[in-house]
Amino acid sequence: MTDMWEVLTIIGTIAFALSGAIVAMEEKYDLMGVYILGLVTAFGGGAVRNLLIGVPVSALWEQGSLFIIAIVVMTIAFLFPVILHQQWIKFGLLFDAIGLSAFAIQGAMYATDMGHPLSAVIVAAALTGTGGGMIRDVLAGRKPLFLQQEIYIVWTMVAGALIGLHVVTTPMGYIVLFVSVIILRMLSVHYKWQLPRRELKSFPEKTNTSL
Amino acid sequence: MTDMWEVLTIIGTIAFALSGAIVAMEEKYDLMGVYILGLVTAFGGGAVRNLLIGVPVSALWEQGSLFIIAIVVMTIAFLFPVILHQQWIKFGLLFDAIGLSAFAIQGAMYATDMGHPLSAVIVAAALTGTGGGMIRDVLAGRKPLFLQQEIYIVWTMVAGALIGLHVVTTPMGYIVLFVSVIILRMLSVHYKWQLPRRELKSFPEKTNTSL
Amino acid sequence: MTDMWEVLTIIGTIAFALSGAIVAMEEKYDLMGVYILGLVTAFGGGAVRNLLIGVPVSALWEQGSLFIIAIVVMTIAFLFPVILHQQWIKFGLLFDAIGLSAFAIQGAMYATDMGHPLSAVIVAAALTGTGGGMIRDVLAGRKPLFLQQEIYIVWTMVAGALIGLHVVTTPMGYIVLFVSVIILRMLSVHYKWQLPRRELKSFPEKTNTSL
Repeated sequence: MTDMWEVLTIIGTIAFALSGAIVAMEEKYDLMGVYILGLVTAFGGGAVRNLLIGVPVSALWEQGSLFIIAIVVMTIAFLFPVILHQQWIKFGLLFDAIGLSAFAIQGAMYATDMGHPLSAVIVAAALTGTGGGMIRDVLAGRKPLFLQQEIYIVWTMVAGALIGLHVVTTPMGYIVLFVSVIILRMLSVHYKWQLPRRELKSFPEKTNTSL
Repeated sequence: MTDMWEVLTIIGTIAFALSGAIVAMEEKYDLMGVYILGLVTAFGGGAVRNLLIGVPVSALWEQGSLFIIAIVVMTIAFLFPVILHQQWIKFGLLFDAIGLSAFAIQGAMYATDMGHPLSAVIVAAALTGTGGGMIRDVLAGRKPLFLQQEIYIVWTMVAGALIGLHVVTTPMGYIVLFVSVIILRMLSVHYKWQLPRRELKSFPEKTNTSL
Repeated sequence: MTDMWEVLTIIGTIAFALSGAIVAMEEKYDLMGVYILGLVTAFGGGAVRNLLIGVPVSALWEQGSLFIIAIVVMTIAFLFPVILHQQWIKFGLLFDAIGLSAFAIQGAMYATDMGHPLSAVIVAAALTGTGGGMIRDVLAGRKPLFLQQEIYIVWTMVAGALIGLHVVTTPMGYIVLFVSVIILRMLSVHYKWQLPRRELKSFPEKTNTSL
């Protein structure tokens, strides 16, 4: 079980580091910008989750080997961007889905083990799965896309709820949940599932933005 | 006294959750984006304050009933946006002012009780009152308006100073301060009070942005 | 030794507070915006570093006299912006470099004293030296320049590595390192040194931003 999670965490870290590195190259950042944005995407979600559920953020530094893996992957991405690009188009979506699912389930298990209430477990699942991408977009000066068309966050929250409510507790259950989140996420993209949305005209007075 | 503060905290939470939800709808976010931006606006200021004054951020999770209230209010807002809009135009400004005042005073009392110095109490008042709106604007990709035309933050800091200096200590004093901040904020909007400002041309070399 | 570091910290704080104040005036913020952006730039990097290396962020409040110095400097900057501008053009770059170097070395010493691994020391050096500017740019709605053309962050990381590996341990060593980082940074600007960069076209599908 522990082995399985370590493998998943490594895959998730690689996928998220690559995602940050590619956004950095799209924004024409230099080598340092690529490393920073990749590391923030891979480790930012876990750091914010730790902050919110009361684990010292400095626990980050115990993940030394993950850091090295992320650095190596981003260096390869920087050296061979065209090859990466082609592979990303083919497998990027699957990698993204695996990272999202692995991190969401890991975050929910972590919060549950600490005895937090259901609301905290759900938020921990959502933040671990999507928080890195959120920080990446804010740093890159992009409006976080997850707020605009992000049905995926719903799947992380459902996974969090199932773990927080102790519906899923066995190794087999975790594997089924892990695969289900991946499939749901892939289907969301393929069929362009969307949550309902509302559009309001901005007020001229903008009273609502003056808090 | 405790009862009064609970009522005020609830009103403030509702006002700030609505404010975030309305910005999210103006930015055409989906249902999940509305919930996220509303929760961030309602609870973000308190979370940053806790971080800066040394309370575990995870204390957030003890506010379970406030979470539920915020979720219910935002769901109603999402279902009936037009009615909300009309009420917001009428009472939004007053609600904003009540939220700002209640949260600023609550934050200042919290920091004072912990024995923090005056500077920390003033910052706690300002952050609790305005921090949620700040995070909301950064996430929504808006330039934080509070930096551009935000005399209101001054009132939160004056309230913080009066509490931190133990000028206000009695229940009656807190009520007077609470109403005063509301009135000052309403007057600021009505008479368009502004702080002095300076405008510098950007350097071509931008040396100042290269730290 | 302690005296020297206090002088350097004061110089760094002044330089960074002025940098934030000037950006705020370029963005036409009011007096409160100038204070907020200046304080965030001067103290934000240290606050984020503390968070990441496990020091309570509230340790910030023990720096009372630095706060007062920063406030006085920003008030003068606000009152006499033209004089400031002229001096900034002449000495701003040097001040920036001194602040960057002092803060990077201070951050690395801090993390080393706490027994953190090398990776944490390097990140502490980089964050203390450049984190304030990062937060300033995000709050001011600017795309963080440090991600786009920031070779300077490399010097802070080299300084962090030399301290973390215990290559530099004597007072004389720290002084040489301090001056070296200043010179390297000035040379980077003068000769427009750049790190390599890659540019990728954005995908139409944007699969990579949908984490």
